[in-house]
Amino acid sequence: MSEKKSGPKLTSMKLENADSKAKLKEKRKAEAEKQSARLGLLQRKCKEAGIPVLITFDGYDAAGKGLQINRLIQALDPRGFDVYTGDKQGEEELMHPFLWQFAIKTPANGRIVIFDTSWYRKVQLDRFDGKTSDKEAERAFYDILAFEKQLTDSGMVLIKMFLDISEKEQKKRFEKLEKSSGTSWRVSKADWKRNEHYDKYRKMNQEMIYKTNTQNAPWIIVDSTDKSAAGLAIMTAVADAMERALTLKAAGPRKEILEDAEPADRYKEGPVTRSDLTKSYDRDEYRKRLDALQKRLEYLHSQLYKLRIPVVLGFEGWDAAGKGGAIRRLTSHLDPRGYKVCPTASPNDVERVHHYMWRFWNNFPKDGHIAIFDRTWYGRVMVERLEGFCSEADWRRAYQEINDVEKHLTDSGAVVIKFWINIDKDEQERRFKDRMQNPDKQWKITDEDWRNREKWDLYEVAVNEMIEKTSTKHAPWVVVEGNSKYYARVKVLQTVVDAIEKKIAEVEKEQ
Amino acid sequence: MSEKKSGPKLTSMKLENADSKAKLKEKRKAEAEKQSARLGLLQRKCKEAGIPVLITFDGYDAAGKGLQINRLIQALDPRGFDVYTGDKQGEEELMHPFLWQFAIKTPANGRIVIFDTSWYRKVQLDRFDGKTSDKEAERAFYDILAFEKQLTDSGMVLIKMFLDISEKEQKKRFEKLEKSSGTSWRVSKADWKRNEHYDKYRKMNQEMIYKTNTQNAPWIIVDSTDKSAAGLAIMTAVADAMERALTLKAAGPRKEILEDAEPADRYKEGPVTRSDLTKSYDRDEYRKRLDALQKRLEYLHSQLYKLRIPVVLGFEGWDAAGKGGAIRRLTSHLDPRGYKVCPTASPNDVERVHHYMWRFWNNFPKDGHIAIFDRTWYGRVMVERLEGFCSEADWRRAYQEINDVEKHLTDSGAVVIKFWINIDKDEQERRFKDRMQNPDKQWKITDEDWRNREKWDLYEVAVNEMIEKTSTKHAPWVVVEGNSKYYARVKVLQTVVDAIEKKIAEVEKEQ
Repeated sequence: MSEKKSGPKLTSMKLENADSKAKLKEKRKAEAEKQSARLGLLQRKCKEAGIPVLITFDGYDAAGKGLQINRLIQALDPRGFDVYTGDKQGEEELMHPFLWQFAIKTPANGRIVIFDTSWYRKVQLDRFDGKTSDKEAERAFYDILAFEKQLTDSGMVLIKMFLDISEKEQKKRFEKLEKSSGTSWRVSKADWKRNEHYDKYRKMNQEMIYKTNTQNAPWIIVDSTDKSAAGLAIMTAVADAMERALTLKAAGPRKEILEDAEPADRYKEGPVTRSDLTKSYDRDEYRKRLDALQKRLEYLHSQLYKLRIPVVLGFEGWDAAGKGGAIRRLTSHLDPRGYKVCPTASPNDVERVHHYMWRFWNNFPKDGHIAIFDRTWYGRVMVERLEGFCSEADWRRAYQEINDVEKHLTDSGAVVIKFWINIDKDEQERRFKDRMQNPDKQWKITDEDWRNREKWDLYEVAVNEMIEKTSTKHAPWVVVEGNSKYYARVKVLQTVVDAIEKKIAEVEKEQ
Repeated sequence: MSEKKSGPKLTSMKLENADSKAKLKEKRKAEAEKQSARLGLLQRKCKEAGIPVLITFDGYDAAGKGLQINRLIQALDPRGFDVYTGDKQGEEELMHPFLWQFAIKTPANGRIVIFDTSWYRKVQLDRFDGKTSDKEAERAFYDILAFEKQLTDSGMVLIKMFLDISEKEQKKRFEKLEKSSGTSWRVSKADWKRNEHYDKYRKMNQEMIYKTNTQNAPWIIVDSTDKSAAGLAIMTAVADAMERALTLKAAGPRKEILEDAEPADRYKEGPVTRSDLTKSYDRDEYRKRLDALQKRLEYLHSQLYKLRIPVVLGFEGWDAAGKGGAIRRLTSHLDPRGYKVCPTASPNDVERVHHYMWRFWNNFPKDGHIAIFDRTWYGRVMVERLEGFCSEADWRRAYQEINDVEKHLTDSGAVVIKFWINIDKDEQERRFKDRMQNPDKQWKITDEDWRNREKWDLYEVAVNEMIEKTSTKHAPWVVVEGNSKYYARVKVLQTVVDAIEKKIAEVEKEQ
């Protein structure tokens, strides 16, 4: 990016002074061997420390991403890393929000993931090629910043490489590739077009780097004209970042400045406390409404599919509130190819070593499908908060993180609704006792349910705070009065039907 | 399938005698409720017993697969099952062997998986539509039988539903679907074509059922004219199969009749014992050959990609034999987007509750890509055999199972090679000691390595047997003389280059 560069530039300064080309080459080789050994060691240390490392490669076509990634991984133990390409834009990728294909591949603790082309393609390649409008790019910048912040806030090391070459150098490389029959297919018309409009493309790239060069995830701009110098710069930058992360981790937990504490009883009262649990339907009313709504939803489901609208429904609520029953009534007339119920239990050992949103990313629906979550990512600000499974800073940060992820979903066209199925403490006791007495239901009740019940008041405060902080216009919370199961089931169905009808009307209007 | 049926027919006989339509309906409803409660209970019992259950739905278009699957899952706890469609034929699916998309989704122990359209599409829909030739169908029948046997031998319950309707009934249903604007898009030209050639299609289906109706995985043919009778039949059949599996499991491990034991010292001598470890190269010879081979492989890699040939390379060998070093030399000039090194460690808790091949299925390469396995599925007949992690029947069965899977890969166009990197006991001792003395290498050596070394002779017998039983024409074992690391690396590269060149020549000839 020569003079006009807007990010830091990496060169191996101390080598530049070498007095001859041969000597320079020799020095570089020795230095590369040193950095390679250092990387191997740091990889093992990061593994021990459970630090996840994410390295992205973007930049100009023919800048040598493939070559450089291969050099980098030669220094690494293959048991500890994965390489993925973000270039892949198959059906699965295109039918999900653009961050999805990356979010589900973020590294577990102690592992390294390398993306050959990252989420930046959305605001770089795709933007230049006209697949991303300026308005979409603005939204994408916001989504990217929020996404990167979530990753680094969770302790992930994020290293973003931008491989830079000049217009002339690029042209030279394209021509060389085209000359050989083994490589000519690698140069596409789109590649040439970007070379022809290099200045315009460069401006776009500069804007991108300017807008996304953050403290937590700075860009590393690598002059890639000289391949071995670039390789050395990359290895050094990765090793430096890993070393820094290890030092920070060894220094102990970050002392975060938390937001001003609100008054202690701020959430004693809230949406849950205020819900009117006397609402009910009798059996006839229930049957009539349920039948009509189920038939309506069946029809709407096929419309969703045709219009490729994804739907995310989250269910939370007190134990025995009737989440399962409500979900069954919701799904009983749906085509199973078009919906999925995703139950959330304690994380297994693969899920436990990933970012807490990772397992939900893995279940977000593709366009035209419904995903129903029986318990959700809100566990972060309920059970994880109250049982101390995460730090105070972690759950306090989570409100914004969750809002950002849900915004990313709705921005990409999804309907997102969260239900809190509410009952009172007496009703819960009645249902617990009923379960204990009924042999067919005994398996549904455990000692843990009784233990959780003792923390009712603490949970009520957490739930009130959660609903107030994460009920947004795009992804609202709906508190469902659940003492009457009939009423609750109908209200859930009605809410879903209304929201889908509204969305369909919007989409049809746009078309 | 009326008179000409070649499989068992399911009807709810005891209900047929009911004296009136209303009474029949009522009886059926009561029976359905009973079966539903039974299913819920059996699901919990199978979960406790760790029994995986796989249910497939195939049959005639518009026979009501979606509806019936949805009815079935209403009776199940959503925390315990997944529904997948085998109709999906996106890029990922088409670039893998046809069993792949199903193999990676087989249930973990204690879970239920339902396929809406299974692997049978290859010999049913795709065959009728002309996408599967008769020759391919023959091969596919073999692959299907081998695949199903592996699953059921491992203790999986496999329930295959064939939903049957008559030509007239199908026509009626198509017409009804076409009348409504909400459902007309569901009926395709291909659907109508299959209806018009119903007799031909029926013959094809009968052949399929005849050829794949096995004891371990019998077909259940469900007359689907009456939806509620069919639903009841399906629920009953699933519950029956689960109950049978529970009874069998409770009866204790199966007393399998093992193949006639071979003489005790049959594998004391074998390919490994015979390998000539004096072979070596000096540094100059090594450098020269290595450079040439690496460049050649780089070129061949791009040809593989263009011709969409997948390559599977398995590496096994004594500890410290030099697998890692050989792999690094193999990959150092390759484009990282086109290859993947898959290290195999002890299974994690997700892998442990799946079929032992499952985690390897997940890593088999798509067309045009290279997958390199650092240790492989042969762990089943080495470490699992010798450490008692599986039963004798399990590992004895594995030779054939592995041959079948590798045949499936090569039949679908893959190059498959397995390397045994061989060193002698003295050389291993030298390398272990070297690792202990070198601070940079100490992490590579553990007490377990020394413990494994004590079992050298037992391993040698197992390795000899393994190589003799699984070195096939389509997927050969190559014993690599490894006392000289230089020699070993060159031989690996040379073998890979030769095999790929041969394959490319074959493919080009076919085109």
